[in-house]
Amino acid sequence: PVSRLTGIPPTIFSTMSALAVRTGAINLGQGFPDTDGPEGLIAAAQQAMADGANQYAPGIGIPPLRAAIARHQQRHYGIELDPDREVCVTTGCTEAVAAALLGLVEPGDEVVVLEPYYDSYVAMLQVAGAVRRPVRLRAPDFRLDPEELRAAVTPRTRFVLLNTPHNPTGTVLTDDELTAVADVAVEHDLTVITDEVYEHLVFDGRRHTPISTLPGMAERTLTLSSVGKSYSVTGWKIGWATGPAHLVAAVLDAKQWLSFCSGTPFQHAVAHALDHLDGWPAELAASLQTRRDLLCAGLEGIGLDPRVPEGTYFTLTDVGHLGWRDGLEFCEALPERAGVVAIPAQGFHENSEAPAVRHLVRWAFCKEPDVIEDGLRRLGGAI
Amino acid sequence: PVSRLTGIPPTIFSTMSALAVRTGAINLGQGFPDTDGPEGLIAAAQQAMADGANQYAPGIGIPPLRAAIARHQQRHYGIELDPDREVCVTTGCTEAVAAALLGLVEPGDEVVVLEPYYDSYVAMLQVAGAVRRPVRLRAPDFRLDPEELRAAVTPRTRFVLLNTPHNPTGTVLTDDELTAVADVAVEHDLTVITDEVYEHLVFDGRRHTPISTLPGMAERTLTLSSVGKSYSVTGWKIGWATGPAHLVAAVLDAKQWLSFCSGTPFQHAVAHALDHLDGWPAELAASLQTRRDLLCAGLEGIGLDPRVPEGTYFTLTDVGHLGWRDGLEFCEALPERAGVVAIPAQGFHENSEAPAVRHLVRWAFCKEPDVIEDGLRRLGGAI
Ligand SMILES: CSCCC(=O)C(=O)O
Ligand SMILES: CSCCC(=O)C(=O)O
Repeated sequence: PVSRLTGIPPTIFSTMSALAVRTGAINLGQGFPDTDGPEGLIAAAQQAMADGANQYAPGIGIPPLRAAIARHQQRHYGIELDPDREVCVTTGCTEAVAAALLGLVEPGDEVVVLEPYYDSYVAMLQVAGAVRRPVRLRAPDFRLDPEELRAAVTPRTRFVLLNTPHNPTGTVLTDDELTAVADVAVEHDLTVITDEVYEHLVFDGRRHTPISTLPGMAERTLTLSSVGKSYSVTGWKIGWATGPAHLVAAVLDAKQWLSFCSGTPFQHAVAHALDHLDGWPAELAASLQTRRDLLCAGLEGIGLDPRVPEGTYFTLTDVGHLGWRDGLEFCEALPERAGVVAIPAQGFHENSEAPAVRHLVRWAFCKEPDVIEDGLRRLGGAI
Repeated sequence: PVSRLTGIPPTIFSTMSALAVRTGAINLGQGFPDTDGPEGLIAAAQQAMADGANQYAPGIGIPPLRAAIARHQQRHYGIELDPDREVCVTTGCTEAVAAALLGLVEPGDEVVVLEPYYDSYVAMLQVAGAVRRPVRLRAPDFRLDPEELRAAVTPRTRFVLLNTPHNPTGTVLTDDELTAVADVAVEHDLTVITDEVYEHLVFDGRRHTPISTLPGMAERTLTLSSVGKSYSVTGWKIGWATGPAHLVAAVLDAKQWLSFCSGTPFQHAVAHALDHLDGWPAELAASLQTRRDLLCAGLEGIGLDPRVPEGTYFTLTDVGHLGWRDGLEFCEALPERAGVVAIPAQGFHENSEAPAVRHLVRWAFCKEPDVIEDGLRRLGGAI
């Protein structure tokens, strides 16, 4: 392969979902729900297509969607945005990450990133020529250590690539943790690029705090999110970047050459949902919490000791006591042995052989309760 | 802006479409139809959404779409493809171009490219660190000169970035011209990346020949196309790359980090259209030919001397005799003066001040006849 992608394996999510399809296993791997988002959202997309919204949208996004995103940020977080200069629609959050890194990061720039990390971060940081400066969220509680964060910053550091609620650990950064990040960012004049796609999927009465709302952060934070996780339409590929005009402009600078624009009828539907189905993501979170509890209790019952996540679709377990070489080998055998697919978390780490990392496996609970129960039964029989 | 995008202006298509929206002018600029594709296609997408095809697709594309693309290539061109290894779905042809260049081109590689060129080629070639080696299609007939092509190749040349039917000139490369490209490619062991999005939009009984069908070319050609132009749904952002497995794999290597996957319900609908609405693009081409003739006759009537295009949505004229500094100034004034938007072709050239280039303006005829007539009336009154 080309040098800018050397050493980057295919995304583990595709690999494991293909394995699930091939083997007919229950897919507790890739993070997508098995029930679609609200009928009103689907109907709005169908209507938009009937109404002729099938040609190119503006690259930056259709005005009604940008306005709805601005209203969403205002309503939920008190953030004021100019929809014409501080909002850019992207082709899912994946494109938002790609465009932000290509549009902002110079070769040689150091980027502080939470470890474990989502695999596209690593790939696009490498494509951008960035140097990764990882800060570990460590088992068993996966919290951010402010000392480790400070130690990761050097004179060449220019960015923090944040993710909260955090995939794959399920950590929701506390206001203290976010303050630590903000302090470092302000002190060292860093720009924070923050992936907050799970913003609405938090549990036990928690609230997600966008880091852009902390003092001194609005002017240095580019926030990325999407409709896929909040409204259970991961296949629609509508995301967005919000923040100061110069950062949003950099996203558009790159995005216009990556996809030019994002699916036009979906943009109309998402605008409708953000305005008129505002309560739906909270209902989804409540239902996910029940399913989280179901999965975690079941995993505990079969001797896997899950981290009870604070947000996201996912929980991590350590399968070290089961005798497999590593999590990858375990996950590769699992479909045949148990008819279940899970995701090895090794690849989300700098050192995939480190003892605390090697046997980490991620399980998704964004599935119907009977699917989770079936998965647990199968696992219980096989383990 | 970031160094990899230094000197790259915002895409002229966004700029001019925004101007059209702002001024209420008739948009004969950006290439998108004002009538949507076939009802059966729209209905299939609505149905796919109703049927629950709203979550992530495989990054490479859903199997039915890859199979339908392979059948399309077989039926139209006699090309045999393995849909599992030789077809990758992309988020429009724009993403296919971006992913192909990021997935294949090393910094310093020389890439031969037809000039004038589509603006995303230049941007993504620069992002990939490539060196452009332009070969001019020159007014008035915009043909490819095999000598000029040969002269552009050096020992560092690794790729030809081709485009036929060609935007913005409307040239459809003849079999002789394609043979010249193939000869050079085989002799110098070049890979050809060819954007053939206007493959079905050719006029006067012409046929588009995919360069991959020439002797020795199948193994070295990556062909890019999309549903947007062929089926009049430019806002759906479904494209594809086809060719030998190693080239298609390189596209997926990059694409997985750019958008991860492409709009799932649209993929189902496009699979349906390719199989069941196979004759539609030819009907569109016939109707476009009439509209081409309408626009060209009208432009000629007001003293602009259009190139009668062999394919695509577009015709070029030289506005040099009208007294404007250049095509850009003309196009910037046109909305206010005439209530019409057109695209200056200067930016698609190495030297935008060259006499044969400076006053070239592109007009789109993918609009309803009465819109074209209205545009012509307005132009006639103003010029
Ligand atoms: C874009 S594929 C992966 C989906 C996801 O967010 C996850 O499984 O972590
Ligand atoms: C992707 S925007 C431009 C559409 C088009 O192909 C053109 O106008 O040349």
